[in-house]
Amino acid sequence: MTQVINKETKVCMSLAARPSNFGTRFHNFLYQALDLDYLYKAFSTTDLPGAIGGVRALGIRGCAISMPFKEEVIELVDELDPSAKAINSVNTIVNEKGYLKAYNTDYIAIATLLSQYQLNKDLVFALKGSGGMAKAVACALKDAGFPHGYIVARSEKRGKKLAQLSGYQWLPDTQGLEADLLINVTPIGMSGGPDENALSFTESEVDTAEIVFDVVALPAITPLISYAKSQGKTVITGSEVFALQAVEQFVLYTGIRPSDALFEEAATYSRS
Amino acid sequence: MTQVINKETKVCMSLAARPSNFGTRFHNFLYQALDLDYLYKAFSTTDLPGAIGGVRALGIRGCAISMPFKEEVIELVDELDPSAKAINSVNTIVNEKGYLKAYNTDYIAIATLLSQYQLNKDLVFALKGSGGMAKAVACALKDAGFPHGYIVARSEKRGKKLAQLSGYQWLPDTQGLEADLLINVTPIGMSGGPDENALSFTESEVDTAEIVFDVVALPAITPLISYAKSQGKTVITGSEVFALQAVEQFVLYTGIRPSDALFEEAATYSRS
Repeated sequence: MTQVINKETKVCMSLAARPSNFGTRFHNFLYQALDLDYLYKAFSTTDLPGAIGGVRALGIRGCAISMPFKEEVIELVDELDPSAKAINSVNTIVNEKGYLKAYNTDYIAIATLLSQYQLNKDLVFALKGSGGMAKAVACALKDAGFPHGYIVARSEKRGKKLAQLSGYQWLPDTQGLEADLLINVTPIGMSGGPDENALSFTESEVDTAEIVFDVVALPAITPLISYAKSQGKTVITGSEVFALQAVEQFVLYTGIRPSDALFEEAATYSRS
Repeated sequence: MTQVINKETKVCMSLAARPSNFGTRFHNFLYQALDLDYLYKAFSTTDLPGAIGGVRALGIRGCAISMPFKEEVIELVDELDPSAKAINSVNTIVNEKGYLKAYNTDYIAIATLLSQYQLNKDLVFALKGSGGMAKAVACALKDAGFPHGYIVARSEKRGKKLAQLSGYQWLPDTQGLEADLLINVTPIGMSGGPDENALSFTESEVDTAEIVFDVVALPAITPLISYAKSQGKTVITGSEVFALQAVEQFVLYTGIRPSDALFEEAATYSRS
């Protein structure tokens, strides 16, 4: 994707210890396609306060925040949107004339999906995982009003911490548990990872569930999603989460919502 | 000029109260033509320390410094090159892994031109002006070893200050002065300005001089240069200064010196 840069061109960026190329390609593709005078560039830093000070002083319009800065950045912004406050984690900053407001579009995306799929609130869920994304999912479930669920995590410390934060119960494993909604927020099934061919829930657990939600975005169809589909279950995929969170970020920066078709094009281009 | 941005793309930028589009167009044109993975963007700021902190924290490769930041920025960098130290003014910062070294490529360009034209050091010069660029020219003359010259400035305070700094004499006007080398460092003759059709030295002053140097870069041929050429005088133009200083900046950022032909193309493109 090519573009013309002028002095008026608005700049958006990302900060990560190890940046990927996805965001740079994704946003620049959409800027071009929609004829927006923006550019996007991934940066790395070892000085987060200096970098955020630069965002403010240079009038950088938007800044995506990735690992390991999502919590450290909180004290450097002026305001937390409820999406970031809910999980004490920021992945998006919008700069309005030097005033930095922070969001978490992962949380927004998950909350949106829970609502779009019109899930029955009385479902019993089992959520596997205890990291930042697990926090986003658990808090979105709590805020959406799901009363019955379990945080399943091998680490008692992390599992209990998340269970306490979100108001659910912690379990070390799913033994004996019959859940209607299975949610994977571990790296199991992620392409290129050590467990890329594994299922984070057993086949029999899937068989007795109604809905399977896998937050892993790559591949688009994980082994868990593949099996669940083969059994006729309702599935929600990590690709959907990723798509929605990226679009929300784009909307926050530009005020423009790309069509689904254009989004698909941008996502395909960005992965190539 | 269009370009592809990736996470590895190096970023250069400028800081000015009121940025022009020239630098952005000039540098991006050359990056494209030379197939360099760089991008250039002009920024404005009201917080210079924050902006320079951002340059450092984000690993911005190079930063041009324009009005009104050329002196204020000195205390924010790690080292002054002799070109910046000579005139206590910075127009270029190079970032080497967080270490900021500051240069003044205007000074470098003028020193280069004085040497290229092989001017006789015994010439008596009259330099009109007392601003930042006049300082660069006067100090370059002093450092090149011209002993005889006058700083001509209506403002006694500013004129005397520059005369003292550069070791020449101040005069309020050129009355009675016979100079061999006339140097205009005022806005007289600048296109679009209030005196765009005026000469900063009289025709008879030009007639008795050998060489006329006009630092005004737009138009390429000022009325003063035009008249001096018509009288068969040696001329040095502001376009030459501007070209050289821009090329020096480009070389400092990228390590690559564009050909004269390519430079001309870039300059023409940037003005369009």
